[in-house]
This record gives sequence, C-alpha cells and structure tokens, in this order.
Amino acid sequence: MADALKIGIAGLGTVGASLARILQTRTQALTVACGRPIAISAVSARDKTRDRGVDLAGIAWFDSPVEMAEKADIDVFVELIGGAEGPAEHSVRAALGRGVHVVTANKALLARHGVELAKLAEEKGLLINYEAAVAGGIPVIKTLRESLTGNDFSRIYGIMNGTCNYILTRMEKEGLSFADCLAEAQRLGYAEADPTFDIEGNDTAHKLSILTTLAFGSQIAADEIYLEGISNISIDDIHAARDLGYRIKLLGVAQKTATGIEQRVHPTMVPLDSVIAQVDGVTNAVALESDILGELLMVGPGAGGNATASAVLGDITDIAKSRPGAQMVPVLGRPAHLLEPYVQAEMTRHEGGYFIRLTVVDRTGVFASIATQMAENNISLESIVQHSQTSSDADQTKTIILVTHATLEKSVRQAVAAIKEEGYLLGEPQVIRIERPKTA
Amino acid sequence: MADALKIGIAGLGTVGASLARILQTRTQALTVACGRPIAISAVSARDKTRDRGVDLAGIAWFDSPVEMAEKADIDVFVELIGGAEGPAEHSVRAALGRGVHVVTANKALLARHGVELAKLAEEKGLLINYEAAVAGGIPVIKTLRESLTGNDFSRIYGIMNGTCNYILTRMEKEGLSFADCLAEAQRLGYAEADPTFDIEGNDTAHKLSILTTLAFGSQIAADEIYLEGISNISIDDIHAARDLGYRIKLLGVAQKTATGIEQRVHPTMVPLDSVIAQVDGVTNAVALESDILGELLMVGPGAGGNATASAVLGDITDIAKSRPGAQMVPVLGRPAHLLEPYVQAEMTRHEGGYFIRLTVVDRTGVFASIATQMAENNISLESIVQHSQTSSDADQTKTIILVTHATLEKSVRQAVAAIKEEGYLLGEPQVIRIERPKTA
Repeated sequence: MADALKIGIAGLGTVGASLARILQTRTQALTVACGRPIAISAVSARDKTRDRGVDLAGIAWFDSPVEMAEKADIDVFVELIGGAEGPAEHSVRAALGRGVHVVTANKALLARHGVELAKLAEEKGLLINYEAAVAGGIPVIKTLRESLTGNDFSRIYGIMNGTCNYILTRMEKEGLSFADCLAEAQRLGYAEADPTFDIEGNDTAHKLSILTTLAFGSQIAADEIYLEGISNISIDDIHAARDLGYRIKLLGVAQKTATGIEQRVHPTMVPLDSVIAQVDGVTNAVALESDILGELLMVGPGAGGNATASAVLGDITDIAKSRPGAQMVPVLGRPAHLLEPYVQAEMTRHEGGYFIRLTVVDRTGVFASIATQMAENNISLESIVQHSQTSSDADQTKTIILVTHATLEKSVRQAVAAIKEEGYLLGEPQVIRIERPKTA
Repeated sequence: MADALKIGIAGLGTVGASLARILQTRTQALTVACGRPIAISAVSARDKTRDRGVDLAGIAWFDSPVEMAEKADIDVFVELIGGAEGPAEHSVRAALGRGVHVVTANKALLARHGVELAKLAEEKGLLINYEAAVAGGIPVIKTLRESLTGNDFSRIYGIMNGTCNYILTRMEKEGLSFADCLAEAQRLGYAEADPTFDIEGNDTAHKLSILTTLAFGSQIAADEIYLEGISNISIDDIHAARDLGYRIKLLGVAQKTATGIEQRVHPTMVPLDSVIAQVDGVTNAVALESDILGELLMVGPGAGGNATASAVLGDITDIAKSRPGAQMVPVLGRPAHLLEPYVQAEMTRHEGGYFIRLTVVDRTGVFASIATQMAENNISLESIVQHSQTSSDADQTKTIILVTHATLEKSVRQAVAAIKEEGYLLGEPQVIRIERPKTA
C-alpha cells in the first residue's frame, strides 16, 4: 500500500464540512478505490469552536489558509474559501509555489486568474482540479478535459445557476411573479440575501468562461460576455413562451462563429419538448456539441454541500490514484502557454430566432407599422400572436408577440428601435433569444 | 516533447476507420492536448484492399489481430473486433500478456471476461479503458470510475440500446406497429438483419452488467439479469401509457436492495415529464443515483462510428497523457481481486409500480373478479381505466388497464395467474413495470 495522500482543507463551510465527514466515514471504500488512504492533515477556517459534525482531533488547525498552504504537511491544498482575490488567491498561489497540488471549487478565482495559475502549476508539474467550480456535481470539467479530447466544439450551453432555474420553474408552475419566487428562493436558502450575482447572470458568466476555454482552447475571457439577467422576465413571457411551444431558461452559451467566439448569458426560449426544457428547479444541465461526438447533455445537481463535495472528492481521488508527478493533464485542456488569444464575436452579429413581445395602443395601422419595420430590416416571421386586453381604460391595449426565423441581432435591435420611435408602444418591448438543441 | 504513443488498431470497420481518420487529420490538436503525438503503428483487418478513406502507407499491416498484439511495436492495443471470444479475446490477452495497454469498445468481451482481464492487467500495471463499450459516446465509465469515487450508489438505469429506443419512439410518434418500425430501423441501418440481440435486451444486459460492477463493486454477472424485450409492446400499450402520463422505454436497471442486487432489462414506463422520457430515437441516456451526489443523468449518442470513435479516442488520450505505468485507475473501479461476490436479488421480490392491461370478455362480474384478485394479493391501485371495444362480433370485449401503487412482483404475478384461470381473459395479459426518477 502506498503512503496516504495528505490533504489540507481551507474553508469548513457546508462543502468543507461535508467533504471532511465523507472522508472520515468512507475511509475504507476510498482506500480500496484509490489504492492508498486519503488523510486530512490540516484544516483552516475562521472559527475553531463551531461544531461542524466533524472530528478534528489530531488534525493541524490553521487560522490562516495562507499559512496552511505555506506550512502544513500536505500533498493537496483543497481551497473552499471562495472569492477571486484575497485569501483564496493567496493561499492557492502559496500552495503551488511550494509544490502542492490544488483542488478548488472556486469559479471566480479561475475566471479571474485561471490562466496564470495554470501556467504556475504546469511549470511545477502540478495539478489544479476544479470539477466543483462549474455545475457542481456534473462532471463537465473532466468530460471536456479528458473524455472529449480531439473533438472540435461548435457550441456549449447550459443551465448553470440553480437560483435562476428555481425561480423560472416556480414562476411557470405556480403562476407567481418573479419577486414572489425570488423571495421564496431566499426563504429556502436557494438565493442569497443580495441575489444580484445570481439573477443578473454573473455567476453563470464565470462558469461559462471556464467551459469556453476548455472547449475552444482560448484564453479565459470572463469580462467579454454578453449579459442579461432574469429580473425582467414576467409571468406573461412565460405563458406566451409556453403557448408557442417554448420554455424560458437562463442559459450560458458559447459558440464558435466565423468572426470569433460568442459568449452570452441571457434568458432563452428552448423548445418545450427538448430534454433541457425538462430540467427543473435547482438542477443544472450542460450541453456540449462537437463534430465527432455529436451532442452530449449532462443533468445533475449544480450546488449543495454534498453534491459539491462529491465533485471535490472526485478531484482528490484522481490525485490519489496517480503517482506523484505522473499525470500530465493540462489544467485548461491544453498547456496554458498554448491557449489562443480570445477573439470576441460581436453580439450584434449573433444570429438566431427571437421572441418579441410588444404592448401597443390598439389603433388602426399599428400592426401594419410593426410588420413594415420587420420587413424593412429583413426579419422573416415564424409566428404572430395578437391579444386584445380587456381593460376598463379609455385606450384599449393590445399585446403583439412575434417569433422570428433565424435573423441578425442587429436587425432585431434596429427594428425594435424604429418601432419605439413610432409612439404607439406602451412600456418596454421584451426581446428573448431562442436557442435550439442540435438534435431538435 | 515525449515520444509518440504508438497504437495498433485491430478492426477497421466503421469505428476503426473513423478513429484512424480522426487521428490522421487532428494530429496537431491531439499532440498539444496530450503533450506527445499519437501514432498509428499497426493495423489489423481482414481485407487489406478495401478503401476506408484512410491512408495506411507506412503502417504495419497484420492479417491477424493476435499476431499484431504479439508482435507489433505498440504501446496500446485498440480492440475494435467485437465478440466475447475468438480473435477479440485472444488478441486482448496477448496484448496484456506482453505488457501493452488495451482500449476496447467490446461490451460482450468485458461482460464475459472482464474480471479476469482486469486481474491480468492489474498484475502487470496496465490499463484497460473501455468507454465506448457502454452507451457509446456518453462518458459513463469515466464518471463511475473516476468522478464519483466514494459515492454509495442506490440505483443506476438507462436507455442503452439505440435500436430499441428508435423503434419505441417511432411507434409513438407515427402510430406504427412494432414490426413496421423494426423494418424501418433495419432499412436505415439502426437494426441488424437479425435484431434479436438488440430487441430482446441482451445488448442492454451486457452493458448493464458492466455498470453494475462499477457502481456496486461486485463481480460482473451478465447472466444473472432478468430479461424482457420489446417485441410484444403494442401500439395500444404506448397509447395507454401516454394517456396515463407515461412513456415506454427499454431500460436496464441495477438497484441495491436489502437482499442483493437487482439487475433487470425490460420495457418500462417512465413519467412523461421526466427528463429521460424525452430521450428520443437512437440517443442513449444513463442515470446514476448515489447518496452524496444525488442524481446525475447523461444523454448522448449511444452508437455510430464517430461517437464511438470519440470515446475510444478519449481512452487513448488518457493513456497518452500519463507517463508509462503511472496511472493506477483500477479497471473495474476497484482492484479486481477486491470485487465482492455478486448477490442476486430475486425478481419476485422486486417492488415497484405496475401497468397491467387485460383484454376481457365484457360480461357482468368480470371487473369484480379482477378487483377481488388484486385485493387478495394486497395490490393497491393508483388508477383504473376501462374501454369497451366497438366490435361487430357477438362477444363484446373490454380493455381494462390497472396501474398499481408500489407492490411486490410476486403479488402481481400471483394476481395475474389467478385472473388467467378465471376464463374471461382474451389473449395474454400485458404487464409493464413503472420506474420513477428519484427527483420526479
């Protein structure tokens, strides 16, 4: 039997405590699977006195994760602190600098410093494993990094934020407003007190930027992502989508185009009978489209202490199974110094179907004007739905819903801007992009 | 740059030719990802003259795969011959005996000789990678073997035969009979001239037996699988399922029970709004349920030259990325000599919901008799549907459909046997098991 793999866990929140419990209760099975024991040699957290349901006797305690990274007797530094800078970044750098492998669940850190950290690790022959950083328990990092080597990707997309998917699912199933569902999600612990980062798409963007690099071999470009959140999705949009045979999901999409890579996060209509449309609640899903394999979709828990701990554990066992220095899996799919520069495709050149919902004053000529603007911008329509509102007001209003065939984003923006100038529009027009799975 | 990884490909059918083409056209990307080139050093096939769209110049040709395994200058033997015995088995043994890693897509070989071959490989410090053997391009082997180490599995199930799923999908979508859809599948190359192995569930059983071992750590037991094919599924069953909110899929299911492991392959009703119910056509899907992760579902192409080649390629690149002898991933998830004996749960003790369709003579007392038999066997009913057939015959007939709550297989068998003895049954009763995803 080989020596134990010694790990240090930095951060004993939900995931860290769950990981420690699993390592302590499943010792034998893990030893059999890895051919050697995995031992927790050190931990670091803020509050030593808190009861986490874990026996910390005999494990070195560090108040500072950086100090643990610098001094503890460990083979692997497990970073579960979070945050792109500060202690997470400093401790990971310290661990790599000292020749210690890193396992992390930190998407923000990788989105910000991933390429640099990968270079550092590769210079030293070290591994950075980060399965838990994207889509929690779904093994999408391993799949992209190891299983699909040699595939040429055309598009990857997914539901990568459980908070948003929970809210959208509840809105549809219960007919509740966005605000009500958000409040419910907060009550249940599915949303933060300040939910901005989730509902405005930033969290999805961080995850997407990592997948983009793995799929397309380009530098991580987390700031070059088109971003739209779900806070302005109304129950009317959800019902209209359903009537037209779609469901609304917040997707992160990365796509190879003739002019560069499109990275975008926005509410998206997906066909009601597609597999991804059935992914409900806090569950995540990631789809990978490539030329050799075709389409692969993975559905699973995107968050939660245990699911995340499962991914972290997989990363640790991968290191336990390999002899020191024996693996050569590049952190970002190819050696970091060989990543291509990121070339961003302009969002105005995005091509796809669009759902456009307009509330207008109900008077003669309005529909003709809308139709004319669409025609003048070369937008061909797949379907048109028109509802008159029964209102006690003097002015009758009408809702007009247009679904376009594949068209340019630029054309849609121009048409909508022109319609806005006509003066019959009430409120803001709603524009939602349509995404179709390859196979549907 | 490290030396090239030298591979020998045995079998140049659809998959082998596709693999060779990919290796020849994507040399640079593969070299970057693996840190070394992958070179085809030898090939073996029956007919040297056939044009396979691959340039074989400078590659050693062997008429016999065994001879190639014994003599070729290779690091990895890629077995794409097929069959549980004969050349496939002999050549794989020869390769391992000589200290050469093996990559194979051969489910039958592994279902039959997997444990023995794993022992042989592990004694010699060699790898056997076989991602393509189960569910084609879906990385379920890697996920079970590497990502979910430490998880305790409760159930795994999946759609693992594209032929059956294609037929069932077409039956539902087009309202065609089993025979018509089978003929169509044969015309399109989705079914063999002799389709028995696919439609009777044997192919699914082979794949299931491998997943069972990976998930539950028991010896491979491909012969101890309860087997029912799809040839007696009628369009009436499919319509009745739909009316009740289900869809019929051929599932392979392995489940841990108090008395052992249940392995079963049979037509199964899954809830219409579940994710797996949307998996159409030749697409495969595998669901893994475990205590730490929860539920993971993977959907993708289960067959086809390119999708299978993608999985084989992933297996090869895994070896290319590791230094010789450096990996210690046990072939079957744990070292083969530590696999537990397989303890089979009796099928009569299976517990679940059942769909029962009975065609009966329409006369007074029949329904009461059926209800009595159900009650006497402690079967509680979730729903009952009754249709009278409009027939010109003297005898009116009736279709009675029962859906049970969770009940014992034994009780259902007893109740159905008792009903058969009553004499009012026309034709054979149809019994289809119901399976519910954990999350639905």
